[in-house]
Amino acid sequence: MKILILGAGAMGCLFAAYLARTEEVTLADPNGEKLALLRGRGVTVLEPDGAELRAFPRMLTPAEASSEPADLVLVFVKASREREALAAVRGAVGEHTLVMTLQNGMGHEEAMLAVAPAENLIVGATQHNASLLGPGIVRHGGAGYTEIGAVAGDVKRFGAVAAGFTAAGIETRVSADVARVIWHKLFMNASASALTAVFRCPLGPVAEQPHIWSLARKLIAEAVAVARAEGQAFDEEEIAGEIRAHLLRSKGGYTSICADLEAGRRTEVDAITGAVAARGRAKGVPTPLCEAVAAIIHGMEELKDGSGN
Amino acid sequence: MKILILGAGAMGCLFAAYLARTEEVTLADPNGEKLALLRGRGVTVLEPDGAELRAFPRMLTPAEASSEPADLVLVFVKASREREALAAVRGAVGEHTLVMTLQNGMGHEEAMLAVAPAENLIVGATQHNASLLGPGIVRHGGAGYTEIGAVAGDVKRFGAVAAGFTAAGIETRVSADVARVIWHKLFMNASASALTAVFRCPLGPVAEQPHIWSLARKLIAEAVAVARAEGQAFDEEEIAGEIRAHLLRSKGGYTSICADLEAGRRTEVDAITGAVAARGRAKGVPTPLCEAVAAIIHGMEELKDGSGN
Repeated sequence: MKILILGAGAMGCLFAAYLARTEEVTLADPNGEKLALLRGRGVTVLEPDGAELRAFPRMLTPAEASSEPADLVLVFVKASREREALAAVRGAVGEHTLVMTLQNGMGHEEAMLAVAPAENLIVGATQHNASLLGPGIVRHGGAGYTEIGAVAGDVKRFGAVAAGFTAAGIETRVSADVARVIWHKLFMNASASALTAVFRCPLGPVAEQPHIWSLARKLIAEAVAVARAEGQAFDEEEIAGEIRAHLLRSKGGYTSICADLEAGRRTEVDAITGAVAARGRAKGVPTPLCEAVAAIIHGMEELKDGSGN
Repeated sequence: MKILILGAGAMGCLFAAYLARTEEVTLADPNGEKLALLRGRGVTVLEPDGAELRAFPRMLTPAEASSEPADLVLVFVKASREREALAAVRGAVGEHTLVMTLQNGMGHEEAMLAVAPAENLIVGATQHNASLLGPGIVRHGGAGYTEIGAVAGDVKRFGAVAAGFTAAGIETRVSADVARVIWHKLFMNASASALTAVFRCPLGPVAEQPHIWSLARKLIAEAVAVARAEGQAFDEEEIAGEIRAHLLRSKGGYTSICADLEAGRRTEVDAITGAVAARGRAKGVPTPLCEAVAAIIHGMEELKDGSGN
């Protein structure tokens, strides 16, 4: 497959390095300086076991990458910039090009629908996580399954994509109920991850500090209620237990939303906690704490961008 | 009057310096080192116009101050330590001793009722504000009226107290509806002041940043709804306009709740935003944002006290 990956951030570089082992991979990024650097030294993945994976995918600007259609466009840019990034590679999205996201949260389909029909969209969630140590240098935090599904039509059509990813070392399966998979991952991101941004803290204190954990529990409860209203029933106690166990396993871990806020970047809060609130409003399910936390994180973004302080 | 002031913080020192001009004032504080220092150099108030006011009130430990009943005990310790501070001066609270608080927020009566009957309690609010530059050295931020009222019985009994304060330079009037005065001040503290703690910012950005101001507006709306349920009707738009004007007049001002959080001290959030939530619960008025903000500030206190991070 000709795969075009949008965004040379941590996840874009991670997937580029793996997929380049067996597929024809182009990594597109609007930052010319970064592209020049990565053309020279390639992309390096530092594995948890100390191993190193190095790859030299084709590095192009979005304009350059638009010269011919790709088989698959994989979107790894921030939620707030997806629309713009997809518009910039319009020429790479042909009639049969699949457009795929594995980004956290919900609402990505809307940006993707601006360039491709619903039948060509793949959504999903991955257990891989990565952080950037420098341009093109990625620490692979953890691996696991990747699940993909269809927005419209039969998911079986995407079996070849899953097989290709799996052959490249990204173990992937198709799921007939990918919404459930996405919700499951969203519970963690909308609650605990968002709170690490509010409190500028690693994962551990979210489970360990009674007031912070009680806020996490309320956020989980709101998200589970919204999922239920959308026809996805989850056991709230079970979800809370899983999240708590994950936090206590990764006490020192920092989230990307916390890093974004520290660095003065816009966060993906509208795709996670904000998305739960928006879907709650649409279904008439009250989500006052999700709304408050999303507004607080937006307030923190405002203070950081220097526009008023 | 023999006046015993509890707590040699900013407000305690300010009132001690003024009242010592015409009354017999004792300032009690459990910190022996601070007492020794203040015995030597007295209490100094730096006025907004550059003038200095210096006074040498009697400085005693709570135990020493308990040897004889005072006419008036004025409580200027943190809300979370009121109960303890009053218990420590039990001997100073006689049958006819009035016990008075001008502290921000609500719920102070409960601590006071543990040492004196409702008829002897005076509650109120003051427009004076002060910050501590060093032990016993106070910057007088702003002045204004002080209003006092009764918890039970006729407020006219407290006319002599108001007259005494006014003679000492603390312009004070009795109010038959002091609850209204306290609510009015609480609107500012429960909303904007609490948000300066959440965002660790001065007053200005609360009015200037759209997401933060929208949070302030929701907190004001919740507090106004609770006041209404308690029989105090306020015009929400008018209150919001007053608060906004105050924030924009004092853009660079820092609140004591923000300073407390920065310094790792417990805050008075339970007497302000937390008190609105508690009274809302009692009256069946939903206050989800007040609850969330109080819980977030408690979470920040937890992180600061090092107990889990």
